[in-house]
Amino acid sequence: MTKFGRHDGRTLIDLMTESSIRALEDAGARDKSVDAVYAASMLAGELNNRTAIGSALVDQLVLFPAAAERLENGPAAGGSAIKNAYCAIACGMYDTVLVTGGEKMRHVRGETITDYVATMTHMEAEYVHGITLPSLAGMLARLCMERYGLSKEDLSRVAVKNHLNGSKNPYAHIQQPVTLEGIYGSPEAEVNNPPIADPIRMYDCCPVTDGAASVLLCATEKAKEYTDTPIRIAGIGHATDIMAVQDRKDPAVLEAVRISAAQAFKMAKMTPQDMNLAELHDAFTILEIVESEDAGFFKKGTGHIALRDGVTALDGKLPINPSGGLKARGHPVGATGVSQVVELTWQLRGDADRRQVKGARRAFSCNMGGFGNNVVSFVLERS
Amino acid sequence: MTKFGRHDGRTLIDLMTESSIRALEDAGARDKSVDAVYAASMLAGELNNRTAIGSALVDQLVLFPAAAERLENGPAAGGSAIKNAYCAIACGMYDTVLVTGGEKMRHVRGETITDYVATMTHMEAEYVHGITLPSLAGMLARLCMERYGLSKEDLSRVAVKNHLNGSKNPYAHIQQPVTLEGIYGSPEAEVNNPPIADPIRMYDCCPVTDGAASVLLCATEKAKEYTDTPIRIAGIGHATDIMAVQDRKDPAVLEAVRISAAQAFKMAKMTPQDMNLAELHDAFTILEIVESEDAGFFKKGTGHIALRDGVTALDGKLPINPSGGLKARGHPVGATGVSQVVELTWQLRGDADRRQVKGARRAFSCNMGGFGNNVVSFVLERS
Repeated sequence: MTKFGRHDGRTLIDLMTESSIRALEDAGARDKSVDAVYAASMLAGELNNRTAIGSALVDQLVLFPAAAERLENGPAAGGSAIKNAYCAIACGMYDTVLVTGGEKMRHVRGETITDYVATMTHMEAEYVHGITLPSLAGMLARLCMERYGLSKEDLSRVAVKNHLNGSKNPYAHIQQPVTLEGIYGSPEAEVNNPPIADPIRMYDCCPVTDGAASVLLCATEKAKEYTDTPIRIAGIGHATDIMAVQDRKDPAVLEAVRISAAQAFKMAKMTPQDMNLAELHDAFTILEIVESEDAGFFKKGTGHIALRDGVTALDGKLPINPSGGLKARGHPVGATGVSQVVELTWQLRGDADRRQVKGARRAFSCNMGGFGNNVVSFVLERS
Repeated sequence: MTKFGRHDGRTLIDLMTESSIRALEDAGARDKSVDAVYAASMLAGELNNRTAIGSALVDQLVLFPAAAERLENGPAAGGSAIKNAYCAIACGMYDTVLVTGGEKMRHVRGETITDYVATMTHMEAEYVHGITLPSLAGMLARLCMERYGLSKEDLSRVAVKNHLNGSKNPYAHIQQPVTLEGIYGSPEAEVNNPPIADPIRMYDCCPVTDGAASVLLCATEKAKEYTDTPIRIAGIGHATDIMAVQDRKDPAVLEAVRISAAQAFKMAKMTPQDMNLAELHDAFTILEIVESEDAGFFKKGTGHIALRDGVTALDGKLPINPSGGLKARGHPVGATGVSQVVELTWQLRGDADRRQVKGARRAFSCNMGGFGNNVVSFVLERS
């Protein structure tokens, strides 16, 4: 990965080139052939005036005539790219594929970003009426409060946990811990943490971030040529849901999380209980809680209880977002799905330093596009 | 396919839904499950304010929880989508995949389109200096004239041939035949056919077009459930070239065409001489001539001779662009690579009516992104 954060004066391709070179060097693959480059980005054209950035990466890295693609699948672009690279290797088309996700978005005004990210909502039923992702998160949080007894404080607890994890991650955009008192309940907190879409406040939202992340995938039988600690993609799931949230049978259920996670666990022949840690898509704090239930880790309506009890803390039974998550590591949208897999790879290798989950062997990631429209899940395992 | 042309008052998703339904109906698959939808588009975000359009298509077609991707690979997006759908089936991830490419671009000013399409050129070496695709085509044409004796009249001959083919294609944007006298050499022709980037004139350029095209892919062993005349993807090639044309060893050679075509023929265990017809990426007339050489059909520098001799005409030995090509069928960029495969499928089935290539059994397509940066080639065969 690059450091996530603000990268003024550098281009999207600069960032993606940096993370690509880091991945190739990490794998000792700078002098080996790469058959294809899968680039992931949501807004390369809209924000950076660049299309077909897979080609640009091949050019920068001098990997001709490697095939090059760009996957754009909203904030799930990174997951999509890894899935398709996996398929290209699994069918025998390629032996070695570089997957790089990136986004350069912090130079653009926040309102503009909010609008662009909303281009994945339903055009006629949502987008034209001014629906944004924070507003959907606000409504989901309200529904969970009414139905499951979740409190505003619980939302802040996700932020406190993920900021603490992020403070131990040198790649995180935000490395500053926060306290519950600092962001919730006091007059000072009201000022520091203004409302965005009630009950969602600023500390319930991920930042707007620049960054890139890369993984090198290869056929299982080739992995030992690159490393003594290869990480295996044991399971993949990918599912869609009804776009307009108002049309879903139960808007408190992220059906595509449920289905894609079940697919990934089935393919891996494992269960949620086999996982030692997870990276979930906490673009908003409420999403981490709901995803932790719909992915199968906790019974519906009890995710916030597990959070309160410290189950999902770094030293808990199932650490969630040891990296700091989208909340603290940051959310360069096209990079996010890849950065989750990078974090899990480091964790499963035992290379995660101060945020290491002890004895991690198996891990889960969930990368979401839209408001649960399109979800890619992975189960990873240390071979 | 939808009819290619101008579709005011309809959205990109409307067009992609129409071609998707046509493909599903053609395959008798409206009531069968589809495991994934691969959408291809170059400029969905920039021109239509839509991202992750695979999700939108799943939603419109009610195919939940089918996986959904969007491939953006410049004008090679359609080819990329088909390739990745093929891999997903070949590795056993999915059985049935719908691939739909589309672009809605004619509502935007021509100069704006020229700029957007140039976002695939090299940012620092080309784009910022005002390089556009027509200007690169002009320079390639000039070089071929100097080196191989190609004439301006030869460029017009591509247009005349492809307009004649397009006049027999009810899906083509332009169905009006033109004569050599009408577009070249007379004072009237000078007015009808103004210079764009000397020696390239208006009739040497494809139009700006709205449209969508779809194919349904499935595992070979399942194909007979859908049709008695399945068309097999026998070969796939995909290669990149140095982005900045000025840095290529020989700017008259489209190296990525050469390599991707060779890969596709090798995978198919066939040669260019085994092909009965081809759809080439004639965004500019000069490209059809150069691609016909670099794909291996004619010796370098002799493509224009084959054209003059009628070899590439509809009744010639190797008909090229029986559909009318990008020149007459039109070029909705993300749809083009898919529409080439649709045309070849119709031709190989014997369903191409007045433009049918008699006895067609094997066919080749070449889908190009940028100015030869990124090329996807297919060899198709009637099973």
